Amino acid sequence: MQKISKAAIVGGGVIGGGWVARFLLNGIDVTLYDPAPNALEKVTKLIANAEWAYDELLGINRPIIGTLTLVKDLASAVRDADFIQESAPEDMALKQRILKDIDSHAPAKSLICSSTSGLRPTELQNDLTHPERFMVGHPFNPVYLLPLVEICGGSQTTIENKKRAADMYQSLGMKPLILRKEIDAFIADRLLEAYWREALWLVKDGIATVEEIDDAIRYGAGLRWAMMGTFQVYRIAGGEAGMQHFLSQFGPSLKWPWTKLMDVPELDEDFVRQIADQSDAQAGDLSIRDLERIRDRGLVGILKVLQDLEWGAGQVLGDYEAAMASGQKVDSYDLQKPLPLLRTKIKTDWIDYNGHMTEHRYLQLFGETTDVLLSHIGMDAAYLVSGRSVYTLETHIHHLEEVSQGEVVSVTTQLLGLDNKRVRLLHVMTLERNGAALATAEQMLMHVDTKAGHACDFGDELATALSRIWAGHQDLEVPGFVGKGIRALKQA
Amino acid sequence: MQKISKAAIVGGGVIGGGWVARFLLNGIDVTLYDPAPNALEKVTKLIANAEWAYDELLGINRPIIGTLTLVKDLASAVRDADFIQESAPEDMALKQRILKDIDSHAPAKSLICSSTSGLRPTELQNDLTHPERFMVGHPFNPVYLLPLVEICGGSQTTIENKKRAADMYQSLGMKPLILRKEIDAFIADRLLEAYWREALWLVKDGIATVEEIDDAIRYGAGLRWAMMGTFQVYRIAGGEAGMQHFLSQFGPSLKWPWTKLMDVPELDEDFVRQIADQSDAQAGDLSIRDLERIRDRGLVGILKVLQDLEWGAGQVLGDYEAAMASGQKVDSYDLQKPLPLLRTKIKTDWIDYNGHMTEHRYLQLFGETTDVLLSHIGMDAAYLVSGRSVYTLETHIHHLEEVSQGEVVSVTTQLLGLDNKRVRLLHVMTLERNGAALATAEQMLMHVDTKAGHACDFGDELATALSRIWAGHQDLEVPGFVGKGIRALKQA
Repeated sequence: MQKISKAAIVGGGVIGGGWVARFLLNGIDVTLYDPAPNALEKVTKLIANAEWAYDELLGINRPIIGTLTLVKDLASAVRDADFIQESAPEDMALKQRILKDIDSHAPAKSLICSSTSGLRPTELQNDLTHPERFMVGHPFNPVYLLPLVEICGGSQTTIENKKRAADMYQSLGMKPLILRKEIDAFIADRLLEAYWREALWLVKDGIATVEEIDDAIRYGAGLRWAMMGTFQVYRIAGGEAGMQHFLSQFGPSLKWPWTKLMDVPELDEDFVRQIADQSDAQAGDLSIRDLERIRDRGLVGILKVLQDLEWGAGQVLGDYEAAMASGQKVDSYDLQKPLPLLRTKIKTDWIDYNGHMTEHRYLQLFGETTDVLLSHIGMDAAYLVSGRSVYTLETHIHHLEEVSQGEVVSVTTQLLGLDNKRVRLLHVMTLERNGAALATAEQMLMHVDTKAGHACDFGDELATALSRIWAGHQDLEVPGFVGKGIRALKQA
Repeated sequence: MQKISKAAIVGGGVIGGGWVARFLLNGIDVTLYDPAPNALEKVTKLIANAEWAYDELLGINRPIIGTLTLVKDLASAVRDADFIQESAPEDMALKQRILKDIDSHAPAKSLICSSTSGLRPTELQNDLTHPERFMVGHPFNPVYLLPLVEICGGSQTTIENKKRAADMYQSLGMKPLILRKEIDAFIADRLLEAYWREALWLVKDGIATVEEIDDAIRYGAGLRWAMMGTFQVYRIAGGEAGMQHFLSQFGPSLKWPWTKLMDVPELDEDFVRQIADQSDAQAGDLSIRDLERIRDRGLVGILKVLQDLEWGAGQVLGDYEAAMASGQKVDSYDLQKPLPLLRTKIKTDWIDYNGHMTEHRYLQLFGETTDVLLSHIGMDAAYLVSGRSVYTLETHIHHLEEVSQGEVVSVTTQLLGLDNKRVRLLHVMTLERNGAALATAEQMLMHVDTKAGHACDFGDELATALSRIWAGHQDLEVPGFVGKGIRALKQA
């Protein structure tokens, strides 16, 4: 794969600045030409956003960030760059002038790509001395995160150069899509533009507000589009009967006034077959059942991400789950026995390469059990806001049996000891199906003043509740392994 | 909130079956009428899909699944239902006939909703005796996972009944969107239909294949649509200059041939202001900066979900990360010291309600460190396929200091002991900034024959590598806490 050693960006707005960030974070030095007085400030903010995102996505084992140089004239920006990305405003005459300037100063072997959303490359490259190395490389905002880049050459662009550009974009973590034909607005923006014009009509005609129109997508079809385009979605909807059968039902509805776009291609037999064949090729060896499973796993994951963000469809899910939980009353426990605090099914993404629940998920469940205990004894949001909390000092886990996806497990908790500041617990996780013990966790917890950062006595409510439990638990039998360390090995 | 006590579903295809699953999993008994011979088989498969999804999303603390009854005539399906969802094929005359039948047998107070994608409710309700309780309730596939349901009443539907339906859908975990006006194809399908007709033209004109068209969405704009509709996306793209300024740039491009939909509303001053005002209302008190942060956090989360699925944009990310990792050579370690095996930045979603890394993430990092060690000593995919692996028997964690998001930590590993089947380790996690020890984990690992399910001797390659490390580590100093258990508390 070809790599870029030095990049020049012309125009440092939302798109150009996004390119700057993507190149820098791939370890590539960048020169930026942007005459705006606040260009550096805007780009710096975008780089910070991008750095956060790359830390989250890739961790720190990525290239050392490149050096950004803001230059005062276009010539010195492009003079020794092997890749130039033009991101000036969407104005044909302006872009033509800038591209001519770039072309005359850049090394003849360097590639020049324009970020235009829809202007035709043939027109943009008309006046260039080296038009063969010019093309459109159309990205999507935020450029540092979205992988797609559409490559559209003009009549004078060579195929070889398009492939070189595709390689270089791919080395930046992108998904290059080389267009077969030149067309206004390429592929994605044609779809977005049809959608956008329809949306404008809905507002204009008073059918819906912009918020309602956005909601009509992000709570529904938008959740699927992160994974699958509409053809694949329709393939699934068609089910085992096949894409050809499914499409044949569309004939009549294309005549219906379901959009302002009433100019439609005829869905005749040949065209239906063409689409069906392309859909077969797209699906490869994935059955409808496979595609459904991928779709549902993706949707579940995306909904959980949005639930953590408390946003959109995830907020609906959060409210739904909260309404469910509020219906569950915590019964008063029998304090002469370990407390049955948690019951859950083992989830798909908790499984490791051995096919069993991975070790840190055990501690996650034990930690959740501790949280349930703490909430039951009065440690609520207000208590945390008051600057007090409970930290874990030590945890000793024994793994006894493996457990697989879909099994139901429960965790009981026994108090092993209590003083003014500390509580010592024993969690036992069992398999519901046969009652087998799967793992145990002994934990020492300490009550802390979170602002001062040191231990302090439990608040009255917590102390009282813990003492009541301890009164019941102090005479319970304690398993023999409790309190013992991990034993030394005799040398082999 | 109103709840449904008994539901009837008429039509058990992809949509009707999805409704069956959603109702059942909300603990509601369902009667299904579908004359197809394989109706029960198809619905059963959908229920299984939905059950898996609800387990993952909501855990097991949800209502006990309702009872499904497949009936042979429509009358007995709807006779005692308080909510009826019609999901017959998209044919006006057929739906009118079925709805009339439902209307004549259902209790007068029950609600009747149609799943139609775009037929007008006024026409559908024309012949009903109780048209005031009929409306469209248009869901999206898969119905059991996507929250959106569009509610569109006809001229005879009462507002009160639309609100009752909205309440009931909300109790099922859905996001009801009540339309202000009746229109063919409602809101979402107008946008989808414009997109779809444009997509058909792209295939017809030979611009792109169905796969390329799908890719042009799912690697780009589709990733945003899971969170935000196009108006919100454009608001962010417009930046601090505001929606009004941004929209004023759209005037010319709406005349350009960027789609086949050339009939467009005039973006005059009033219309631009209307959209800008609605966009302000939609954003509420969220600044552009806030929206960017939400967008980027969501995108990072979604990309990670897709990476785990090895699908679409996540596959691109996985390949990118793999290409990066393959560039890193594991240097030969100094075996007279603990091995520096892991270095990472603390991620945003590892943080708990106290603002520190949550406890199970410590074990996740220690577990990853163990995996690095195992891979360095020769436990690769082929080794696992040969039916041998290494399981953790015990883990004892000491928490020493808290650590916050964005800090860089590293983990070193010291061998504490080794025999033919077991290795005893000490991991130490330190904060890179000041070298402070954050946590330690003592672990006992055992080599296993995974098929037989019992311990067995290390393979030669592993044994040799471990012995080499042990030769260097056996004389290293061992901290005093090693091998000790969690101490008992003196009673308060």
